[in-house]
Amino acid sequence: MRIAVLGVGLIGGSIGLAARRQGDGEVVGFDPDSATLARALESGALDRGAGTAGEACEAAEVVFCAAPVAALPGLASAALEACGPDAVVSDVGSTKREIVAALGGDARFIGGHPLAGAETSGVENARADLFVGARWYLTPTERSGGVLYDRLQRAISDLGARPQAIGAETHDRLMATVSHLPHVVANVLVGQAAAELTRDSERMPEVGPSFRDTTRVAGANPAIWGDIFSTNRDAVAEAIEAVGGRLREAAALIRAGDRDAVAAWHAAAAADRQRLLEADLAGGLLHELRVVVVNRPGIVAELALALGEAGVNIEDMALHPAPDMRSGAVSLWVAGAEQAERAVALVRDLGHSATVIGPAGA
Amino acid sequence: MRIAVLGVGLIGGSIGLAARRQGDGEVVGFDPDSATLARALESGALDRGAGTAGEACEAAEVVFCAAPVAALPGLASAALEACGPDAVVSDVGSTKREIVAALGGDARFIGGHPLAGAETSGVENARADLFVGARWYLTPTERSGGVLYDRLQRAISDLGARPQAIGAETHDRLMATVSHLPHVVANVLVGQAAAELTRDSERMPEVGPSFRDTTRVAGANPAIWGDIFSTNRDAVAEAIEAVGGRLREAAALIRAGDRDAVAAWHAAAAADRQRLLEADLAGGLLHELRVVVVNRPGIVAELALALGEAGVNIEDMALHPAPDMRSGAVSLWVAGAEQAERAVALVRDLGHSATVIGPAGA
Repeated sequence: MRIAVLGVGLIGGSIGLAARRQGDGEVVGFDPDSATLARALESGALDRGAGTAGEACEAAEVVFCAAPVAALPGLASAALEACGPDAVVSDVGSTKREIVAALGGDARFIGGHPLAGAETSGVENARADLFVGARWYLTPTERSGGVLYDRLQRAISDLGARPQAIGAETHDRLMATVSHLPHVVANVLVGQAAAELTRDSERMPEVGPSFRDTTRVAGANPAIWGDIFSTNRDAVAEAIEAVGGRLREAAALIRAGDRDAVAAWHAAAAADRQRLLEADLAGGLLHELRVVVVNRPGIVAELALALGEAGVNIEDMALHPAPDMRSGAVSLWVAGAEQAERAVALVRDLGHSATVIGPAGA
Repeated sequence: MRIAVLGVGLIGGSIGLAARRQGDGEVVGFDPDSATLARALESGALDRGAGTAGEACEAAEVVFCAAPVAALPGLASAALEACGPDAVVSDVGSTKREIVAALGGDARFIGGHPLAGAETSGVENARADLFVGARWYLTPTERSGGVLYDRLQRAISDLGARPQAIGAETHDRLMATVSHLPHVVANVLVGQAAAELTRDSERMPEVGPSFRDTTRVAGANPAIWGDIFSTNRDAVAEAIEAVGGRLREAAALIRAGDRDAVAAWHAAAAADRQRLLEADLAGGLLHELRVVVVNRPGIVAELALALGEAGVNIEDMALHPAPDMRSGAVSLWVAGAEQAERAVALVRDLGHSATVIGPAGA
């Protein structure tokens, strides 16, 4: 596959390293900072460097825009201008509504967000295995081309990641809760602990392992987080307010001093966390679902979104157009019999004919 | 030193292992669960087991009560009854006001709290090095015997820990902020993330590394935390309410969408965390402070508390009573020239004569 990477820092560099490890195709990179581009070339993340973003995109089949969030709409827009009609352009930004609203009208743009690499930056930290096993959200719209979505998902699977379709709105609300909010809370906890310093004395409070864990992400990458909070401000503010309500309930519970009620609340949190972490685990043998579809725009995005939002992870996908190109079949692979059954039911609910073709290797 | 350990789980077992590694003295243990006592003996944490708490205390110079928080006042009270007039009785509970209020009238009781081992339990996880480098708070009162405080501090240093005196009130407020509050926040974050599950669909949100870190302690050990929150409920509720106020400010800041202001707030959090973590580091060569004191009850606690609350860490201590026993000298070792100077100033402010006798080894 011919891949262009625009912005070759940690994420872009890692995309290059992972794609080149596949061995076929070509990775062309561009970075506005020529020293960064030179380091990316030295590190083996690129087959060659380009002088402009447009030049990098010339023959690309897949373009990854990997710049800071605030720069992404402009960069992806330039990529769409430079690319041919058959290329897919994606990005790796942590928020998705703003860029999808700006560019989602172009069938060639599909937003993306890998859940990896948030804690460092710079091409010198790039790794070929950065995305191995990582969730990579994709935000197709009804305008997104099915063939292009399929190619993008394949490119991302090739990097070792696990692509999953999700709506841009849902993505940003979810990230507000499971990513942006923890950063806000970590900041607030360190602020409060530091304020304790001056309350009685000069003594800096000693902190234990729970504080270290809970505040590990406090203040990480201020420039990046300024952008993230800015492009997701309403969802983050709502998540903060919701957590404020839950904290008031917790304060009332603890103040009331009912030991058993407190222990029950605490045990419920343990159970919730267990369920949340289990959601990360893949499960079971791959089952192929063969879905017969009328070949119209948006059909692949519709399937991917329906399964993604129901928690069914598409491990792989293949399109089989009929000779007349007006209908065709889509093969979807999902892990585990239970997920396969749910997927068939969901696909049938959408009005398509679907069959499970047994587990791979079984 | 002859040490009794009442309750030989993770903390009690680790005290035994660490004390026995010192090689001199004897460690006698008791546990109400005879299987636990047998495992502690097998693991080498004890020289011998006793049939009752009182029997374990008979010849002890230092008694550590290492039971769940709710059981500690009763256990320590039984130990004080069984011990001679020259023994010191301490505990390892995570909250200190309740037990100090109950037993602090006895000159032989000095509350304690090691910041170690919170994440597991059971004697099978006990380790001789559990306390190495760990802060171990002690809460002497004006009634506490100086010789006994000195012996307890030495016993704790022998376990590898870094004892520091602190008032019980201050301890509980501090722990509310740097330990109990992070647990509450972790619980609330997982509760909110789990609630997202049912908002749109059955999809469980994928969580990233920031969520994993921030919620690692969610729901840990419900029984223990029921006790901790119960015995520190006002301080924890106040800390929660203070964090609620800070979260409202953060929501307003983020909603306003001023990218630079958000980035500045975020950068301040990074600086605060750095300062908090640096407070854990020991610094510099040991300096001896020789303080001449009138030998009256409470004098050692007064010195230890004044230095502890000013953030000066006493690495070691020795009492040198004059032959008439009415006056004497106390040697205190602190790390670093700057801490030594602050310590001298503080001790002189208390009305004592004090001299720095140069850095050890310099």
